[in-house]
Amino acid sequence: MEAGKITPRAQDYAQWYQDVIKEGDLAQPAEVVKGCMVIKPHGYAIWEKIQKDLDRRFKATGHKNAYFPLLVPMSFIKKEAEHVEGFAPELAVVTHAGGKELDEPYVIRPTSETIIGHFFAQWIQSYRDLPLLINQWANVMRWELRTRMFLRTGEFLWQEGHTAHATHEECIEEVMRMLDVYGDFAETVMAMPVVKGRKTDWERFAGALSTFTIEAMMQDGKALQAGTSHDLGQNFGKAFGVKFQSKEGKEEFVWQTSWGVSTRLIGGLIMTHSDDNGLVLPPKLAPIHVVIVPIFKNDDERTKTLAAAEKIAAELRALRYSDEPLDVEIDRRDGMSPGQKYYHWERRGVPYRMEIGPKDLEKSSVALKRRDGGPKTFVPMADVAKQIPGLLEAYQNELLAKAKAFRDANSVKADSWDDLVKALDQNKFVYARWAGDAALAAKLKEIQATVRCMPLDAQADPGPCILTGKAAEKRVLIAKNY
Amino acid sequence: MEAGKITPRAQDYAQWYQDVIKEGDLAQPAEVVKGCMVIKPHGYAIWEKIQKDLDRRFKATGHKNAYFPLLVPMSFIKKEAEHVEGFAPELAVVTHAGGKELDEPYVIRPTSETIIGHFFAQWIQSYRDLPLLINQWANVMRWELRTRMFLRTGEFLWQEGHTAHATHEECIEEVMRMLDVYGDFAETVMAMPVVKGRKTDWERFAGALSTFTIEAMMQDGKALQAGTSHDLGQNFGKAFGVKFQSKEGKEEFVWQTSWGVSTRLIGGLIMTHSDDNGLVLPPKLAPIHVVIVPIFKNDDERTKTLAAAEKIAAELRALRYSDEPLDVEIDRRDGMSPGQKYYHWERRGVPYRMEIGPKDLEKSSVALKRRDGGPKTFVPMADVAKQIPGLLEAYQNELLAKAKAFRDANSVKADSWDDLVKALDQNKFVYARWAGDAALAAKLKEIQATVRCMPLDAQADPGPCILTGKAAEKRVLIAKNY
Repeated sequence: MEAGKITPRAQDYAQWYQDVIKEGDLAQPAEVVKGCMVIKPHGYAIWEKIQKDLDRRFKATGHKNAYFPLLVPMSFIKKEAEHVEGFAPELAVVTHAGGKELDEPYVIRPTSETIIGHFFAQWIQSYRDLPLLINQWANVMRWELRTRMFLRTGEFLWQEGHTAHATHEECIEEVMRMLDVYGDFAETVMAMPVVKGRKTDWERFAGALSTFTIEAMMQDGKALQAGTSHDLGQNFGKAFGVKFQSKEGKEEFVWQTSWGVSTRLIGGLIMTHSDDNGLVLPPKLAPIHVVIVPIFKNDDERTKTLAAAEKIAAELRALRYSDEPLDVEIDRRDGMSPGQKYYHWERRGVPYRMEIGPKDLEKSSVALKRRDGGPKTFVPMADVAKQIPGLLEAYQNELLAKAKAFRDANSVKADSWDDLVKALDQNKFVYARWAGDAALAAKLKEIQATVRCMPLDAQADPGPCILTGKAAEKRVLIAKNY
Repeated sequence: MEAGKITPRAQDYAQWYQDVIKEGDLAQPAEVVKGCMVIKPHGYAIWEKIQKDLDRRFKATGHKNAYFPLLVPMSFIKKEAEHVEGFAPELAVVTHAGGKELDEPYVIRPTSETIIGHFFAQWIQSYRDLPLLINQWANVMRWELRTRMFLRTGEFLWQEGHTAHATHEECIEEVMRMLDVYGDFAETVMAMPVVKGRKTDWERFAGALSTFTIEAMMQDGKALQAGTSHDLGQNFGKAFGVKFQSKEGKEEFVWQTSWGVSTRLIGGLIMTHSDDNGLVLPPKLAPIHVVIVPIFKNDDERTKTLAAAEKIAAELRALRYSDEPLDVEIDRRDGMSPGQKYYHWERRGVPYRMEIGPKDLEKSSVALKRRDGGPKTFVPMADVAKQIPGLLEAYQNELLAKAKAFRDANSVKADSWDDLVKALDQNKFVYARWAGDAALAAKLKEIQATVRCMPLDAQADPGPCILTGKAAEKRVLIAKNY
C-alpha cells in the first residue's frame, strides 16, 4: 500500500529530498508543464497554514491585500534598467490572445514592481496618501533551467509586499520591519533559525538599492535564502513617475519597498526538520496535530476503540494550540494494519500519534508517540486531551532548539582562504572578514560558494580581509547555497 | 476630497455600476492590460470574506485544496472536442519563454478540467481512491471582447472544484450538493436570492453532460449567472484516461464534476443591494461592520470623544458576529468634517456608523445610523456594543427580504410570445412553458434574452409551449442577462 522508499540523507541528499516530498504526498513535478509542480492537498494545507499566520502579521503591521493583473506589458519590464537585465532571461511571454497576435506582448509577472508602480502613480498624489502599504498573494513565473520542487519552480506561489513612503528613513524602517516579521515567523512558527543580513551589491534584487535576507541552514549545510526585503529607493518611483506633494509643497518621488516569501519556505521546512523516515513538521504548521489509530481485531473491539477515539477527538477539537483549533484525524480505514497506518502518518509528519487498543481501554489509557522518535508513553484517557497543547508546544520548541544547535555546531570562523575552502568542503556556514572587494564573488563561484549576507548582528572584529588582506571591520557569512 | 459623483440608477444603470465601484474604492480597470482590472484593498477584503466562508463550506463537505499549474499544454485543450470549441476563441497563448520559442505553446488556464484530468489519471487507480474531492483557488484567463469590472474580465479570481466518482449517481449527488452550497451561500451570506436550475443544452459548460446554475435578479431586472455546477459525465475521464478498477474488478472511467464561483459574485453583490448613494454591503461580507466617528471642535473634545470611541471599539472587537470577530474602525482623521467622513464610509457600504460627540458624552449615549437609511437612533453607551450583533443580523435579514420582495414583484408568468416580449421589455423574470425545441434560443436572441434555467423547483403546470404550442409540462425562466 505504501510501497515507496526514502533514500537516507547520508546516501543521497538530493534524492532524499525528492523522496520526502513524494512520500509525504506534498507535491509532484508537473512534467507536462516544464519546471512546474502540482501542490497536492497535504502540501497545500501547509501553505495555507503559512499564509494564515503571515497574513495576520502583515495586517497587524498595517498592510492591506489587493490584486494586480497577472500580465504585465513587455514595455513595463524595460522601464527600470537593472530590472529588465535581471528578469529578461526568465520571462514567459504571451504573444497571442483571443485568436489574434497582440500588438504588444505581455509577460507573465515574474514579480510585480512594474505593474504596481504604474498604479501607485495613480493612487498617490500627496504626502497624505503615504505610507501606502499593500500586499498581494499571487502566482508568479520565472522560466528557470534547473528546477527543484518548492525550492525553484517555473511557477510558484508567494506574497509580495509593495509599499511607498515619503522619506528614505521611513522606507528603511519598513524594510527592516518586514525582515523582522519574516525572521520571527521563521523562528517561532517554522522552528527554522535564520541569519538576518544585507546582501552584497551583486546579489541584490534587480532594481533595488539594497536587499536584506533571512538565510537558513539546511541539513546538508547549504544556505537557503528564505525571504527578502528590498529597499527600492526611488528607482521604480522614477521609472513609473510615482510622485507626491510633500508637506512643504514640493513634488518628490516616493521611496518604495518590496518584500516576499514563497512556497520555497516549504522546501526550507522540509530540509530543516525531516529525517530518514520522511517529513517532520513543527506543530504550528502541521495540518493535522494528532492522528488517532484505533486498534481492533473484531467488530466489537472496533466499536469500542472507535467510540473512545471519538470521545478524545471531540475533547481535543474543543482545545486550541497557537490560536487555532486542534486538528485531529481518526484513521478508521479497514484493510490496513496498525503498522501500515503508523507508517502512513509518520511519512506525513503528523506530530503525535495516539494508539487506542483493547488493552488501553482496560487500563483507561492511551499510547502516545511523537513523530521524531523517543519512547511510547502511556497517558490516562482522562488527562490526555489537556496534555496535548503543552506537548505540542514543547515539541515546537525542541525542534527549534535542535535546528539552532545543528546550525551553531556547523558554523565556524575562517581567517585564511585555505581554512575557508576546507570549512566549505565540510558544509559549514563560514564567517570570514571581507573588506568589500567585488572580486570575492568570482573567486567564491569557483568553489560553488557565495556570500550569503553581511549579518546585521555582526560584532566589530577587525582584521585582514580573507581575499585581499586589506583591513576589514566585520565578518560576512559565506556558504554553499540552494 | 471625495469629488466623485454617483450617477442615479434611473438615469444610467451601467454608469451607476461603474460609479459605485469607483466611489466604493473596490476596483479599477487595468487599462494597460486589456480587459483586466485591479482589485483594490476594499474590494479584495470583500473577496477574502467570500473565500473564507466558502472555503469553510467546501472543507465541511470533504473537499481539500490543491494547486495545479497556471499553464496548460495547448494539446490538452484539444482533447475534449466540445471543450476546445467552447474555449479556443478566448485563449491567451504563451509562445516564448526563457528567451526561446516553445516547441508547443501553452495556454493560460481558462479553467482547469484538462490539466487536472491529466493528474487525476495518475492519482486514481482503484475504487478506493474515490471519491476524489479537490478544490483550487486560482486566477484564470478568458480573453473577452466586452468586459465589465467583476462581471466579465480577462483575468478573474475564482475557485474551481473538481471531483471524481465511481458512479454517475454519486457524481450527480455531488453536483447538486455543491449547487446547494452555492445557493445557501448566496442567500444566507450575500443576502442575494437565487433560482436554482438546469441550463439548456446550448448553454451548458463546454464538455459537460449538464450544467446547473444559480441565477440572481439584479436591480435592473437582468439575470446574473452567479455560480455553476457541472456534471461532466465521463467526457474528461475518457479524454484523459481517468480509469479505476471497480469493486467488481472491472476497469471503468470515472464520473467527474466541476463547479465554480468567481469575483463575479462581487458584481452580483453590488447590483443586488447598492443604491444611489453607493455601495451597500450585507454585514456578513462587510470588511468593516461599524465605523465610529468621533466629533470634536477642540483638543479637549478630541481627547474625550476618542477615548469613548476606543472604549466602545474594544468592547465591540471582543464580540463576534457570524462566527467572526467584529471589525470596527475609528475614523481619527484630522482636517475632515464629520459630514465628509459620513460620506466616505457610506460610499464604502459600512453597515453601521456610530457618532460620538460632546453632547453624546454628556448624555452617555451614541448616535447610530444604518447604511441603508432610516432615522438616526440614540443608544446608551453602556448598551450599544452588545446590541450591535443583533442589529447586524436584523440588517442582514432585511437585505435578503428586500431583495426577495424585489425579485418576486418582478417575476411574472407569460403564456404568449407577445406577453413574453412585453414582460422582458419591463425587465422582468418571465416564467413560460417550453416543450424543448432548440429554436427558442435563436428567437430569444433577437430580443436579447435567454433561457436562464429550468428551475429545479418548477411545479407541474401543463399547457402549450410559448414557442411551438406543443404540450409542455413546466415553465422555464427567461430573462435578459449579464
